[in-house]
Amino acid sequence: MAGDHTFGLRPGEEAAALPERFDAGLHFIGRLRTPWIDRAACPKNGLGSDAVCTVAVDPPYAPALRNVTGCTHLILLYWMAHATRGLVVQRPRHADGPRGTFSLRSPARPNPIALSVVELLGRDGDTLRVRGLDCLDGTPLLDIKPYFASTDARPDARVDRAGAEP
Amino acid sequence: MAGDHTFGLRPGEEAAALPERFDAGLHFIGRLRTPWIDRAACPKNGLGSDAVCTVAVDPPYAPALRNVTGCTHLILLYWMAHATRGLVVQRPRHADGPRGTFSLRSPARPNPIALSVVELLGRDGDTLRVRGLDCLDGTPLLDIKPYFASTDARPDARVDRAGAEP
Repeated sequence: MAGDHTFGLRPGEEAAALPERFDAGLHFIGRLRTPWIDRAACPKNGLGSDAVCTVAVDPPYAPALRNVTGCTHLILLYWMAHATRGLVVQRPRHADGPRGTFSLRSPARPNPIALSVVELLGRDGDTLRVRGLDCLDGTPLLDIKPYFASTDARPDARVDRAGAEP
Repeated sequence: MAGDHTFGLRPGEEAAALPERFDAGLHFIGRLRTPWIDRAACPKNGLGSDAVCTVAVDPPYAPALRNVTGCTHLILLYWMAHATRGLVVQRPRHADGPRGTFSLRSPARPNPIALSVVELLGRDGDTLRVRGLDCLDGTPLLDIKPYFASTDARPDARVDRAGAEP
């Protein structure tokens, strides 16, 4: 996998040699249906569009949707199948310099699991209607979790790019 | 894997037969060091303890920590290695009845990826000091993300157990 990076690094970027073997495995449990079929069309984040998207859960996992309509918001975890995995320092197109991967929400990361907080609009059988997604149509779903304001909402959190030690 | 559930289901619980093969693989990128060495000692959630915990990132991934100290809060994703994976309807000990897995934050889920929002207290080389974890000492780390209040904080979100359709 380190071979992914023998060319294609931008100045200042760094790649790690990933292990040959995986430590654990994932099951895709459904698909996210969105209006965006190429990367350039995707909103920059989940608040960048009002589009209503669909979470289509595969039948074996659909019983796990029970009680979910009691939640106003959900956390969705999904898999960025096309992401480069070895980049540890990367230079986002709109940044003024290289940044550590763990300071970014870029899909390029050792485990390309993306996370969005979405508003739950309703359920129709095995599918949920949600608002707040930013990903490509057909993106594999990994998990659905209830969003608890008590533990998940930190409205005072800040990200200060200038104040970070390099 | 469905064999995990040939016994041990509580009344009302349901298990799915998981596929034989995985769809994607994960790399463990570090370990969470916490004061809790058995499950009974773990707090119920990250706000249940003031303990300062440590995120120990493995050396190949440590360059990805660059710029992370500009964040007051982080999202940690980690792997619940001991969790049962097939349960789609489960009966938490303190609930009044069976619940869909996607309405719960239980570690037992098809992809046992846990998520905590933590306060970042500081960085010492390859390790971060954080507050807000709830997991066993030695838990495998999957990802570190910056927490953005603009997209991740929903202080008005609610979970209404009674109002959910079954």
